[in-house]
Amino acid sequence: MKLKLIAISSIVTATVLTATIVNAQFAKPEAAIKYRKAALTVMGTHFARIGAVAKGEVPYNKEEVAKNAAIVSSMSHLPWQGFGPGTEGGDALPSVWSDSAKFTNLSEKLTAATAALNTAAQSGDLDAIKKAVGATGQACKACHDDFKKKG
Amino acid sequence: MKLKLIAISSIVTATVLTATIVNAQFAKPEAAIKYRKAALTVMGTHFARIGAVAKGEVPYNKEEVAKNAAIVSSMSHLPWQGFGPGTEGGDALPSVWSDSAKFTNLSEKLTAATAALNTAAQSGDLDAIKKAVGATGQACKACHDDFKKKG
Repeated sequence: MKLKLIAISSIVTATVLTATIVNAQFAKPEAAIKYRKAALTVMGTHFARIGAVAKGEVPYNKEEVAKNAAIVSSMSHLPWQGFGPGTEGGDALPSVWSDSAKFTNLSEKLTAATAALNTAAQSGDLDAIKKAVGATGQACKACHDDFKKKG
Repeated sequence: MKLKLIAISSIVTATVLTATIVNAQFAKPEAAIKYRKAALTVMGTHFARIGAVAKGEVPYNKEEVAKNAAIVSSMSHLPWQGFGPGTEGGDALPSVWSDSAKFTNLSEKLTAATAALNTAAQSGDLDAIKKAVGATGQACKACHDDFKKKG
């Protein structure tokens, strides 16, 4: 019952947060840069905790992984509103704005990958979780390769 | 129906995230400091959007306020796991650790205030939202007064 509610929670949150993006506003570009870094930091922290389990560095605990995956999935909707027009800078390459269709496509793939990770995490199937962690990590990397400053 | 689900979502997320705090771990104090700042930045950004509506600077849009409030309420559970033992520094005063009972109490009051804000936001009662914004702002300030470096 609790897990079902978490699944519902994630779907609802996803719907709510995606709709937020369009109307999001920041007073200054610096605020947008700070915001997107912050959202990515929170997402990355909770993803890394699942990654450590997938790598066998931390024992698998279904409840913990499920909680972290729910946070990752919710957070995956937030950073993109911080990459609006006129917010160049930070760790973002200019390609975010010059090739925005590709950037948006990759951000949507990441969001989809985290949703799948959350589904796997709620199911408690460790093999499925490991696969979903790999796919999510690939989605992170695919975007970083083309759109994030190196080093 | 959608709003009911958002309310359920928030309650479930609250339960899930509160339970996360106990077992949260960071490899280094710097990671905990970065994480808590990030979580507070995301929460503060979405709270400020509601604050602007409450102050009359931005027209009231029920859906937008409801979305932001759901994010604020969810985010309000996260920062505290970043204030564990040995993570002194950043904007945090030493009192966070020397008077941790009071800090925890104020963090719980903030979490409760954001839950009430979310309830008001989902109801669409602008007067109730304004009151809840005031109470949430007071909860932020009460903690900052005693536990955050000034300036």
